[in-house]
Amino acid sequence: MIQQRLAALRSIMKREGWDAVVVPGSDPHGSEDVPERWMLRYYMSGFTGSYGDIVVTQEHAGLWTDTRFFIQFAKELGDTEYVLHKLRVPEAEPYPDWMVRNLPAGCRVGIDGTCMSVAEVESLKEKLKAIGGTVVNRPDYIDELWPDRPETPNDAIFVLDDTFTGRSTADKLSWLRKELASRECDSMMLSSLDEIAWVLNIRSNDVLYTPVVISYLLVEPQSATLYTNLAKITPDVKAYFDANGIVAMPYGEAIKAFDTLPEGERMLMDGTKMNFAMFSQGREVLGERLTDGTSPVVLEKALKNDVEIAGFRKAYLKDGIAQTKFFKWLEETLAAGERPTEMDAADKMASLRREQGNYLEESFAPITAIGENAALPHYQPTHNACSIIEPKGLYLLDSGGQYLEGTTDITRTVPAGPLTDLERIDYTLVLKGMIGLSAAIFPKGTRGANIDVLARIPLWKAYRNFGHGTGHGVGHVLCCHEGPQDLRQNVYDQPMLARMITSVEPGLYREGMHGVRHENMILCVEKGQNEFGDWLGFETLTCTYIDPSPCVTELMTEEEKSWLNDYNRSVYTRLLPWLSEEEKRWLRSKTIDNELPVESPTDDKWDDE
Amino acid sequence: MIQQRLAALRSIMKREGWDAVVVPGSDPHGSEDVPERWMLRYYMSGFTGSYGDIVVTQEHAGLWTDTRFFIQFAKELGDTEYVLHKLRVPEAEPYPDWMVRNLPAGCRVGIDGTCMSVAEVESLKEKLKAIGGTVVNRPDYIDELWPDRPETPNDAIFVLDDTFTGRSTADKLSWLRKELASRECDSMMLSSLDEIAWVLNIRSNDVLYTPVVISYLLVEPQSATLYTNLAKITPDVKAYFDANGIVAMPYGEAIKAFDTLPEGERMLMDGTKMNFAMFSQGREVLGERLTDGTSPVVLEKALKNDVEIAGFRKAYLKDGIAQTKFFKWLEETLAAGERPTEMDAADKMASLRREQGNYLEESFAPITAIGENAALPHYQPTHNACSIIEPKGLYLLDSGGQYLEGTTDITRTVPAGPLTDLERIDYTLVLKGMIGLSAAIFPKGTRGANIDVLARIPLWKAYRNFGHGTGHGVGHVLCCHEGPQDLRQNVYDQPMLARMITSVEPGLYREGMHGVRHENMILCVEKGQNEFGDWLGFETLTCTYIDPSPCVTELMTEEEKSWLNDYNRSVYTRLLPWLSEEEKRWLRSKTIDNELPVESPTDDKWDDE
Repeated sequence: MIQQRLAALRSIMKREGWDAVVVPGSDPHGSEDVPERWMLRYYMSGFTGSYGDIVVTQEHAGLWTDTRFFIQFAKELGDTEYVLHKLRVPEAEPYPDWMVRNLPAGCRVGIDGTCMSVAEVESLKEKLKAIGGTVVNRPDYIDELWPDRPETPNDAIFVLDDTFTGRSTADKLSWLRKELASRECDSMMLSSLDEIAWVLNIRSNDVLYTPVVISYLLVEPQSATLYTNLAKITPDVKAYFDANGIVAMPYGEAIKAFDTLPEGERMLMDGTKMNFAMFSQGREVLGERLTDGTSPVVLEKALKNDVEIAGFRKAYLKDGIAQTKFFKWLEETLAAGERPTEMDAADKMASLRREQGNYLEESFAPITAIGENAALPHYQPTHNACSIIEPKGLYLLDSGGQYLEGTTDITRTVPAGPLTDLERIDYTLVLKGMIGLSAAIFPKGTRGANIDVLARIPLWKAYRNFGHGTGHGVGHVLCCHEGPQDLRQNVYDQPMLARMITSVEPGLYREGMHGVRHENMILCVEKGQNEFGDWLGFETLTCTYIDPSPCVTELMTEEEKSWLNDYNRSVYTRLLPWLSEEEKRWLRSKTIDNELPVESPTDDKWDDE
Repeated sequence: MIQQRLAALRSIMKREGWDAVVVPGSDPHGSEDVPERWMLRYYMSGFTGSYGDIVVTQEHAGLWTDTRFFIQFAKELGDTEYVLHKLRVPEAEPYPDWMVRNLPAGCRVGIDGTCMSVAEVESLKEKLKAIGGTVVNRPDYIDELWPDRPETPNDAIFVLDDTFTGRSTADKLSWLRKELASRECDSMMLSSLDEIAWVLNIRSNDVLYTPVVISYLLVEPQSATLYTNLAKITPDVKAYFDANGIVAMPYGEAIKAFDTLPEGERMLMDGTKMNFAMFSQGREVLGERLTDGTSPVVLEKALKNDVEIAGFRKAYLKDGIAQTKFFKWLEETLAAGERPTEMDAADKMASLRREQGNYLEESFAPITAIGENAALPHYQPTHNACSIIEPKGLYLLDSGGQYLEGTTDITRTVPAGPLTDLERIDYTLVLKGMIGLSAAIFPKGTRGANIDVLARIPLWKAYRNFGHGTGHGVGHVLCCHEGPQDLRQNVYDQPMLARMITSVEPGLYREGMHGVRHENMILCVEKGQNEFGDWLGFETLTCTYIDPSPCVTELMTEEEKSWLNDYNRSVYTRLLPWLSEEEKRWLRSKTIDNELPVESPTDDKWDDE
């Protein structure tokens, strides 16, 4: 099968006079999870990993991917003619360099520019110059190569009501037009699916885990045009569009949008997000009338309004109810001698979330991991390949839900049974890190790189560390990972601002032993001002208890122990109205009946504000 | 007098056809303290502040300076025709913008390009383009304007022996030539006085507080040429130069050095450090043969060798002896009813340092401040204008010395008498910050901006902050402030590396009330490696007790209290051999007899390395 497809591609290449083709792995919108229509990498190779580029010539078929997928390559592509080209190893040779070494002078390389970034194509062009090679952007070859290629999804669009969004699309469009005017632009072409969904207050099912609409959006002074699969537009949505001056056009027409721009008007596009094909078409048609700049939607979307914030609080309350039921179920199931698998547990968690109102779907593929499996930060078990949860060591569950009120993402690590001293120490140090950052107060202007260390220093002082960022922004009924803020060592540009919601999720991973991660979602809030500055801090939105029983209390300060006791007390109090008597008793045993001994109440006298 | 000088300048301007002249405030080498020869700003205006640019036209004489010097301007220049142009205020208009508004089209602006940076002149040129104006670089006008202008100093150069530097100039020159070759350059022109002094292992008295030699240094493959006042070369130095292939040439000849460069040879210059006149001359003569790049000396000089590190330890031991005697003297003097002035105290401190062997001079103007004076972080009292030290509140002394073994910089804040609760709390919070950063462990690659917060978070959590950086590098018998590392919120480029020496000096300043700063010098050291990374930490070099008596112990963790007890115990132990019986008793009362109660010994069991 794979061989036939390669043969078909090579025959197209011969006809077109292409010496090589790049088969990229992404979609035109930079989605984290790629819709079926753009799974060409999988179609051409059978590779199911989430990262990799394929290059095919008449003599060679290669997949360029990194360390995470070397084993998977062998398993899935071992029997094909594909050769693995290793990235992120010392001897790595990216595919453009490989091309320069292997293609003939004056070569022509076919690409689908809709699925490649501007930077990627420009860098490829630059490299190929060395052998007089050129790039041919011809997205249409794929339809010929892939006869039964799926269309973009036609699930209905639904409108996310202002009672959930807190801000009408009329208001957002009017705000965006003012922003564009302030940059001396008249219109803007958007391609990021979460930005489009946010501006128009629409959602759908086009991408797994993220309720967005596959589309482009052109915002002009008097109108807005949504380029999408027209089958998605129900009469209700049509009426909503009409009321807001929004016109729907077929998805494939977006590329022609530049031709219709009135004489003299200027357009903004974000060249870091727009795909190469659209961007270069815009540049060709508009020339200097195209401004390449950061989309104003990115920051505005990250600053949650009061209704969104209230929604997030509600979503985390729902999550807290579901998680309480889940961890009670897990403990009792194990105690009863049953041995669920990791996927049984994930399914149980999803079903408990589904019981909550306004639930849409999971917000990402859950990481459900017992023992040494949790040492892989991005462990992805399947129903066919996962472990049984034995009552021993630590169990880690990183999961989340899409509710109409907000998007959740939470990790808890709990004892499945007896723990080693090292497991308890690691559990405690990671928790200290999460508390350290959650309890921070900082002046306006502070960036992620300035405070990231607060989640790491307890680990660092014990010569331990984790290899991922400390936290990421989250969208409102949108992407689980959202910019522009981030908590990591190298985020220098974007200060933390009030109304941003960010995860805090330090971890520790010991290969072959265990993994720990504690993840809460924190809202940046104003904390007043004084002669020393304007102050910000965090409010924890997540409402799920953190088990104090594994804590090594001698490693914790009085402040840290008080923080944990206070947090668990607040979780218990908030969840109380929503739990059965039995669930209340159980949660009480995990929280207020299980507080860490504190030598004196937290001394607030030095906080004389 | 000032008016006559302005008249003389205007007459030169008329003759040359200049519409304006920029009188800059720095010297050709970017020195922090400017030698007399370049005090043209003072000569032309009487202004003694350390920052400001003067622009003179036929109708106007203006001084551009910032908030720190507004009062000083009124005091010193109030009776002259000078007008104050305020910088760092919302309505600030930098002098190039002022010129564009006030000079005629096609104007000519005279400058001394030897005392302006490349960036400054380029930015001025760019601005003046708007009115068709040009810049005329004519340093020689100053000699005409200032008949008795001082020459560059002729104090003798002395060689800092390899027993102090740990590395011969032959070795350093050979290393530098290899570095240049690796950047495809043959030679380098240096202008930073500390870089030149470091490469050649020479010192002198040309700049106050920094024992450098005013000079340029041209390093070529087979020789090195030092452009300096030849009167500085003693027969011993001449012999040393001969032995190392170093030729001395008159200072003024440096500008001609580019003409003699052999055909085809390439030269490196650091455009961020070289003054405009030299750099543009180099560019004109050499064209593409001039490479603009960071001086390799900067980083190499910051990585102290074993001999330098041992020297620093010795210098801080000497400082510790002198400081112990000083604080004992201060306490006893006040107890005896005497009331020294702030300058009496600084003089006493300097005299105690002078008693130590191999002492050269103070390493900067001491900040000696009682009570509310300490709320000005850069308070600079003089013998004519300083306060009396009353036995009440906090006394702050920030001082340092140049010893042949190393350069010191230390701040201690001590109780001069009874303290308020707020003084004690602020004292404690600042100390917690210093301890937090000093005790940090961090992986290789960590930059200043990533760990700066550790010195601030105890203050931030009490809604307090300080407006200066947390720490700066220090030279070896060189500048008290040295790059490339820094501990501050925005230092993103330079990772902390083993062998760097940096101050840690958090503070807190309350206008009209008090100021606190605790400053130690810390050496970055390797702390081993494991599966989580390569680890770095700090060793405190400063060896002066920190008074525990003002501490509010309820605000401190067990770890912080233990750190302070351990530090003071170590100071006492190290200084013991060098103190009289009476001094020992006194220091004992401040340290091991005055330890903070710790509830349990520091628990190291979680540090399983």
